[in-house]
Amino acid sequence: MERSEFVARLDEELETAAYADVDASANGLQVGSLEGEVESAAFAVDAVEATVEEAVERDADVLVTHHGVVWGGLDRVTGRSYERIAPLVENDIALYVSHLPLDGHQELGNAAGIADLFDLGNRAPFGSLGPEYVGTQGLLPEALAADEVKNVLEDALDTGPGSVRVLDFGPDELEQLAVLTGSGTDWLDEAVDAGADALVTGEGKGKVYHEAREAGITVFLAGHYATETFGVESLQALAGDWGVETTFVDHPTGL
Amino acid sequence: MERSEFVARLDEELETAAYADVDASANGLQVGSLEGEVESAAFAVDAVEATVEEAVERDADVLVTHHGVVWGGLDRVTGRSYERIAPLVENDIALYVSHLPLDGHQELGNAAGIADLFDLGNRAPFGSLGPEYVGTQGLLPEALAADEVKNVLEDALDTGPGSVRVLDFGPDELEQLAVLTGSGTDWLDEAVDAGADALVTGEGKGKVYHEAREAGITVFLAGHYATETFGVESLQALAGDWGVETTFVDHPTGL
Amino acid sequence: MERSEFVARLDEELETAAYADVDASANGLQVGSLEGEVESAAFAVDAVEATVEEAVERDADVLVTHHGVVWGGLDRVTGRSYERIAPLVENDIALYVSHLPLDGHQELGNAAGIADLFDLGNRAPFGSLGPEYVGTQGLLPEALAADEVKNVLEDALDTGPGSVRVLDFGPDELEQLAVLTGSGTDWLDEAVDAGADALVTGEGKGKVYHEAREAGITVFLAGHYATETFGVESLQALAGDWGVETTFVDHPTGL
Amino acid sequence: MERSEFVARLDEELETAAYADVDASANGLQVGSLEGEVESAAFAVDAVEATVEEAVERDADVLVTHHGVVWGGLDRVTGRSYERIAPLVENDIALYVSHLPLDGHQELGNAAGIADLFDLGNRAPFGSLGPEYVGTQGLLPEALAADEVKNVLEDALDTGPGSVRVLDFGPDELEQLAVLTGSGTDWLDEAVDAGADALVTGEGKGKVYHEAREAGITVFLAGHYATETFGVESLQALAGDWGVETTFVDHPTGL
Amino acid sequence: MERSEFVARLDEELETAAYADVDASANGLQVGSLEGEVESAAFAVDAVEATVEEAVERDADVLVTHHGVVWGGLDRVTGRSYERIAPLVENDIALYVSHLPLDGHQELGNAAGIADLFDLGNRAPFGSLGPEYVGTQGLLPEALAADEVKNVLEDALDTGPGSVRVLDFGPDELEQLAVLTGSGTDWLDEAVDAGADALVTGEGKGKVYHEAREAGITVFLAGHYATETFGVESLQALAGDWGVETTFVDHPTGL
Amino acid sequence: MERSEFVARLDEELETAAYADVDASANGLQVGSLEGEVESAAFAVDAVEATVEEAVERDADVLVTHHGVVWGGLDRVTGRSYERIAPLVENDIALYVSHLPLDGHQELGNAAGIADLFDLGNRAPFGSLGPEYVGTQGLLPEALAADEVKNVLEDALDTGPGSVRVLDFGPDELEQLAVLTGSGTDWLDEAVDAGADALVTGEGKGKVYHEAREAGITVFLAGHYATETFGVESLQALAGDWGVETTFVDHPTGL
Repeated sequence: MERSEFVARLDEELETAAYADVDASANGLQVGSLEGEVESAAFAVDAVEATVEEAVERDADVLVTHHGVVWGGLDRVTGRSYERIAPLVENDIALYVSHLPLDGHQELGNAAGIADLFDLGNRAPFGSLGPEYVGTQGLLPEALAADEVKNVLEDALDTGPGSVRVLDFGPDELEQLAVLTGSGTDWLDEAVDAGADALVTGEGKGKVYHEAREAGITVFLAGHYATETFGVESLQALAGDWGVETTFVDHPTGL
Repeated sequence: MERSEFVARLDEELETAAYADVDASANGLQVGSLEGEVESAAFAVDAVEATVEEAVERDADVLVTHHGVVWGGLDRVTGRSYERIAPLVENDIALYVSHLPLDGHQELGNAAGIADLFDLGNRAPFGSLGPEYVGTQGLLPEALAADEVKNVLEDALDTGPGSVRVLDFGPDELEQLAVLTGSGTDWLDEAVDAGADALVTGEGKGKVYHEAREAGITVFLAGHYATETFGVESLQALAGDWGVETTFVDHPTGL
Repeated sequence: MERSEFVARLDEELETAAYADVDASANGLQVGSLEGEVESAAFAVDAVEATVEEAVERDADVLVTHHGVVWGGLDRVTGRSYERIAPLVENDIALYVSHLPLDGHQELGNAAGIADLFDLGNRAPFGSLGPEYVGTQGLLPEALAADEVKNVLEDALDTGPGSVRVLDFGPDELEQLAVLTGSGTDWLDEAVDAGADALVTGEGKGKVYHEAREAGITVFLAGHYATETFGVESLQALAGDWGVETTFVDHPTGL
Repeated sequence: MERSEFVARLDEELETAAYADVDASANGLQVGSLEGEVESAAFAVDAVEATVEEAVERDADVLVTHHGVVWGGLDRVTGRSYERIAPLVENDIALYVSHLPLDGHQELGNAAGIADLFDLGNRAPFGSLGPEYVGTQGLLPEALAADEVKNVLEDALDTGPGSVRVLDFGPDELEQLAVLTGSGTDWLDEAVDAGADALVTGEGKGKVYHEAREAGITVFLAGHYATETFGVESLQALAGDWGVETTFVDHPTGL
Repeated sequence: MERSEFVARLDEELETAAYADVDASANGLQVGSLEGEVESAAFAVDAVEATVEEAVERDADVLVTHHGVVWGGLDRVTGRSYERIAPLVENDIALYVSHLPLDGHQELGNAAGIADLFDLGNRAPFGSLGPEYVGTQGLLPEALAADEVKNVLEDALDTGPGSVRVLDFGPDELEQLAVLTGSGTDWLDEAVDAGADALVTGEGKGKVYHEAREAGITVFLAGHYATETFGVESLQALAGDWGVETTFVDHPTGL
Repeated sequence: MERSEFVARLDEELETAAYADVDASANGLQVGSLEGEVESAAFAVDAVEATVEEAVERDADVLVTHHGVVWGGLDRVTGRSYERIAPLVENDIALYVSHLPLDGHQELGNAAGIADLFDLGNRAPFGSLGPEYVGTQGLLPEALAADEVKNVLEDALDTGPGSVRVLDFGPDELEQLAVLTGSGTDWLDEAVDAGADALVTGEGKGKVYHEAREAGITVFLAGHYATETFGVESLQALAGDWGVETTFVDHPTGL
């Protein structure tokens, strides 16, 4: 497939343009030329030295990630930025990034992946950011205790026992979950207003403890990385359907 | 002691005015009247419902905290803000807050407390924020491995084994430590530039993993709450010296 | 009636949400909890120490005012703010504020009240502020001289002879009035463009004298307080209809 | 005297440049050419149609005012602006404006003129605005009651009985006065902090009533125009000393 | 014709109001009164001392220009501004300005005039600025070489041989032209995206050379003045149709 | 020489840090790693595809330019940016940029080079931008006519007869020259205020014609590129003195 075609299909599927005003990430093609072919595509959560080097190793023509190398403009192509970008350029690997568009996609996105884990019903967009959404919400098929939710997460995310932190301030039986992967605790109040019993997210600053306690909602902190592999894996499957050879570059951070 | 005197002494000791332009927290007297006496003072890391209620319980005249109830202006005194403020007002407890001034104090502050733990020598201010500093740095009396530093922290902070996360990307032997409690990973590059082998802080967003890896520096995430009890405890000791009856309201968050 | 119901009814009637972007005042519930009942409601133009103390005296559950205690965010709950807020909190009185929504309401509002005094016909919204209006305009049933208008105002507002200042630069016979209570002289040019013969407002800075003189329009300065009792009195009547016991806390300022 | 010399002398005496960043008024030469002579100079508080026409009548070469025709930039030279500027241009009258520099001048300024009325001692600058001051403060030779201060003002300003409004919330005996002419009530708290018993100013919005009441300070509202003739009269005297023929265009507004 | 009628007709024809938010120029009546008649109207590209003096010479009642005397607000009416404005005021000549509305008008505008020169077909608006357009685009009746386009421009603009600079980086045969008069090189990328073979504009900063070279598009720099006489000449014709006596004040700048 | 040493020496010589707040260009090392050696350095006015490719051709380790590839932050490394940056990265060529620091350097800078051409005496910094200067000024050894100045420029800049445009509105005999290369016409008024008879610059927008005419100052537009080779040539000589092999990549634009 031609690169320009590959980029255009992803932009359309992910509605990249709709998020231009609300995302500090430059989504879409972020590094590289539109010229050339895509025979092999690598997928990763983060575009960093480690994953870029692995993409080189695996002979990828394009690297698709959730977190890119440009946030709000690059002052210089030096230091850390150079080390991440140079191997891409030297090996003619295009970098395609989808940050909030991938968080918000109600079928392919990160939150949608967590929702699938729990087989949530009655789904609706959650996590408003301007006119867009960056999460999802829904009802558990049957009520679960906080520990049960925790176990499902630790098993599915494969992060090991004790890796998911629980702020257990909600009801004993959890029915409605709000999901916003990565750093989602800024939407705690929206979760409460939406009637959620718990918020499932990746990480949170210390202040979320008392906010959850005072609001009477349970919060699951399941890891920024661990909650954000779903989106890029969905895109990997999509690209596979298009006939592109794909590979997933896994590099968990434990955070 | 008169309240106005109590507030004036703390403002002078902490150089509250110097941080006015760099801190979103309204430092100094944040809630209450300057009228009245201070016979008993409570100290806590966070001014939240739980600690405020405990201060009421303990009959405090003033509550001194690191994190207050106003960040960048209060739109309304309703909801969560009301629940935190109302008990203070109803029981005539003044709330005195010192956020960055207490982080940055080179003797009484949070980072200074961590530095004392390790008996750091050759200390210098670290963590520049405009013209001020919010951390400290220094040399270990003898080089330590990352695991040894971790053990010291877990013991001293009393957070239990496994509670301190280590991103072990620095040299095997750590000699120079940069310390910035709470959320300090935005100063990672400054730590590298300062020649530090490791940064000791409380919490960090997921992206710090690769930043540390690529910079070749070790990072200790020892908990936001756990790293920030030192400052208010120093103030407690100070108030005790002034003849005020004091009490520490401990409410660890695990974050 | 439950407090939450009381607040919700007023928010709906006054279209509080529509003014969120154009008003520095935090309209709606400004201080207090949504929990509890409203048996007795006090109404006043200003939420200040004097009126709050009187509301306490009269055992109100809620105080409804046109001017609140928060304008563009409260830095601290100390000093003047504390003195106004503390008695509300200590006596569990909720403060409900409606600033521009109440100015602009075409039936219950302050300008509407003045329009009613003169029995203005052919009414239309006046005083645009973004997409909203904060005043009203209309035709006198029969043309009046400036002195006659002045007398009506002094009688109705009960502010005594000589209390209304007249900048008599319009036509001898006034037919069309624009009304914008409080500080309305910034809309002088809009009044001229709308064809008004006179602008009725509360107060004006010195420069309005020459602006009116050069524009050939008459201006009545009838007092900020005196022109702004109508709105809260309308709300008082409304609450009475809902079965709430009501009381009006009058505290004229002479300004 | 040459116009350029006249302008340069005033700019130097008034330190026009120092106020460039804190004043929305374009101080110094505001309309006209630097070419030509100044034989006759008119002085007025406001540069408006009425005073400009009178300056034409009196054959002035320059008009010196406290309030000019440009505030924060002129969008067009049409309408009201045109009516004020055109007669100046048609009759080759230069307009020299001194707003805050004239308020703040500790000898020639407006506040200084009021201070002279009361023979204030121990004077100091008052009314900080960035690095500059726009008022003055000092001690009465002997304590006066509010009524006595009021009488002095009404007599000296020649505005007639009842023209000065008094918010009599300070001590019975007034000793220290803060003076800031025109619209000075934004500096009420600074007056309280400075230990003043009363603030003398020209006009104030309605909210100053309760602010003064709660702060326990007396406020005199003596008229914007009436309190701001002193500065331009000082400049008139100065120009007279330079040998320029001078005239004062008085146009009281009653506000 | 009455002045107010003359101004209203132009405002309507040019959709002046639509450009208010995107143009630093104060379009519409910029200097003068709406009172009086328009018997004779002068037209020029620039409202400057030379053209204003010539308009005086020719006894015009109004001067219509593309570039006015106010850009983003006038700080003072002194110096260069005074020299341009004073003769207008002294001779009661109104200044009517139409900057971007005249650039963007698809029939009367500057770009439309260039499009007419080449008899462009399939025309569409070009040069987006917020919601408006300030240029036009279309197809040449038959493909031309760059030299042929250059010759047409030099002949029609009457600027002499060698006056049009060509950055000849596009195809040998030019078919689609984008036109944006004056300083149009900021829209180079939009021209490329629109499929244009060449951009015709007035002037460009040095950096346009490499931008055009790298984008493979030809750029014609035909002079800011020379490309912007079309619009005012269209307005001259229009006014002539209304029965107004007209004259064109030509003052080429060579730039 | 090590790259880090090469960069450090230039930063010190050019006082790069002093211009950080006034220049949209990211000065200093703009692309590349600090690792490695500098044996051969290329110098050019612009960092664009053409010059970068030539630097590759000539086996340079570093390319030093006046205009870089980043202006106010790079959104993406794609399209034009990619085409300029990729060859640098692929061939491990560092890009060192000095924009305003090089304009303003009073000995090595662009304006200094023009001043040397004319052997200007009594030199002083010219062209203030915040606290810095970006040009120079001085006196001709003997007065020259505008044509003589033009001839000197055309000869020295080697741009051919007719290439320098003269706006000949100053005195017949030019004595004092203000020089600000590139786009310097925004400093026209500063040149007049400084007493200059003429301003020598590279290019100017059309409006400079009337500004110069009305101010009575002569302006020479000698080409943006042509006036800005001096600075990088000075740096080339400097690097040669350090023992680095150097080459100048000339690519005139005619603009």
